[in-house]
Amino acid sequence: MSRTDPSTASTGSPGKARNAAVARRPGRPSGDGRDLRQTLLDAAVACFARQGIAGSSLRAIATEAGATPALLHYYFGGKDAPMDALIAAVIEEKLMPVMQSLRDPLLQAGDDPKALVRGFVRSVIATALAHPWLPQLWVREVLHEGGGLRRLMFDRIGPLLPQLLAERFARLQAEGRLNPRLDPRLLVPSLIGQTMFMAASAPIWRGVFDAGDVGADALCDHVLALLESGLELRDV
Amino acid sequence: MSRTDPSTASTGSPGKARNAAVARRPGRPSGDGRDLRQTLLDAAVACFARQGIAGSSLRAIATEAGATPALLHYYFGGKDAPMDALIAAVIEEKLMPVMQSLRDPLLQAGDDPKALVRGFVRSVIATALAHPWLPQLWVREVLHEGGGLRRLMFDRIGPLLPQLLAERFARLQAEGRLNPRLDPRLLVPSLIGQTMFMAASAPIWRGVFDAGDVGADALCDHVLALLESGLELRDV
Repeated sequence: MSRTDPSTASTGSPGKARNAAVARRPGRPSGDGRDLRQTLLDAAVACFARQGIAGSSLRAIATEAGATPALLHYYFGGKDAPMDALIAAVIEEKLMPVMQSLRDPLLQAGDDPKALVRGFVRSVIATALAHPWLPQLWVREVLHEGGGLRRLMFDRIGPLLPQLLAERFARLQAEGRLNPRLDPRLLVPSLIGQTMFMAASAPIWRGVFDAGDVGADALCDHVLALLESGLELRDV
Repeated sequence: MSRTDPSTASTGSPGKARNAAVARRPGRPSGDGRDLRQTLLDAAVACFARQGIAGSSLRAIATEAGATPALLHYYFGGKDAPMDALIAAVIEEKLMPVMQSLRDPLLQAGDDPKALVRGFVRSVIATALAHPWLPQLWVREVLHEGGGLRRLMFDRIGPLLPQLLAERFARLQAEGRLNPRLDPRLLVPSLIGQTMFMAASAPIWRGVFDAGDVGADALCDHVLALLESGLELRDV
């Protein structure tokens, strides 16, 4: 299903995308068409994450890529709604491969609930911190009321990952292997709130708590300690 | 400190605000100036939450309130930057009172860590579900990179609530009364991820999981079960 390797899908860094394209002269592609198309997609992802999909013009994306709007037209549908084609390509070639990759820990964990939770937590946190465009795009286009990817969440991502997770939790609970006081459905946003949300809010908590030292490993350790054992509050 | 009772601060409902003002004729206030000013503030909050602060014009806010831009000028600073005055009034009279009220459970819990966590969780979830503008505004203007209230988060809300909470957790941990594997600083975004984020994402998980039946009480029960005992995963 996945057409690109999510681990190299995009840095979301405008600088990198710009530098990559600036080395060539804008215009029709020569021998490196595939690279240039990827550069344009990376630029689109960076713009969408920073300014929102509705707030990103073809011109802004072209500028981000150090290219021309004509080049976007060339790669994404000629005169026929190149922005629609670009959004569709970002979804299919950038976003969905990442979502697919987040599903791997579930498929690999088999019948081991701890491996399931650890795999999911580590995978979402590592992916979101490595690709800053992902939590930003998620905040802007999914979490926002009226976000442009909310329909995608309901129609495609929901069945792919959240519903699969909730079913797994419900089965574990029925087998007496999961805290019976939890709601297996709410456990999915609870996990997102400890992973994707933690990555999305990292610039805030790093600033408020002077916690620039906290990286992916320390964050995972904290989250897994909370999920596996809870707060362990004692009255003394 | 608080000038309005947060429990009645705003519904965030455009319909209500519009109906309240539409009953009067737009223009200079007659005897109900205080009510009208509140209606204008409610309309501003609703617009800011829905369209963002930068995306809300005086005209849009006036329309939302069923009033005229001239009325906004009258109440908020005449010719001198009425939008700045309106934003400042929303912060001081709508947002900060709610933040102050969320601090109450901390101040009342004394030395009881369970009362602290339960009070905070119930208070944030109840407030965020009762005032839908609050989680929406938080997503748009705080969680967003470049959000218009992020500076407020660092300068005023951070010291008011998150830093106070983190200090409390650090002390509990030093006394051996909190899970030693947790990071007391990260525990603050972890709690926000189980409260404010759960409220902000409610329209999504209610849709994805057909969970329209889950109200504030059921959500609190789930979150407290997770925080207090963790997942309680068993290998069989």
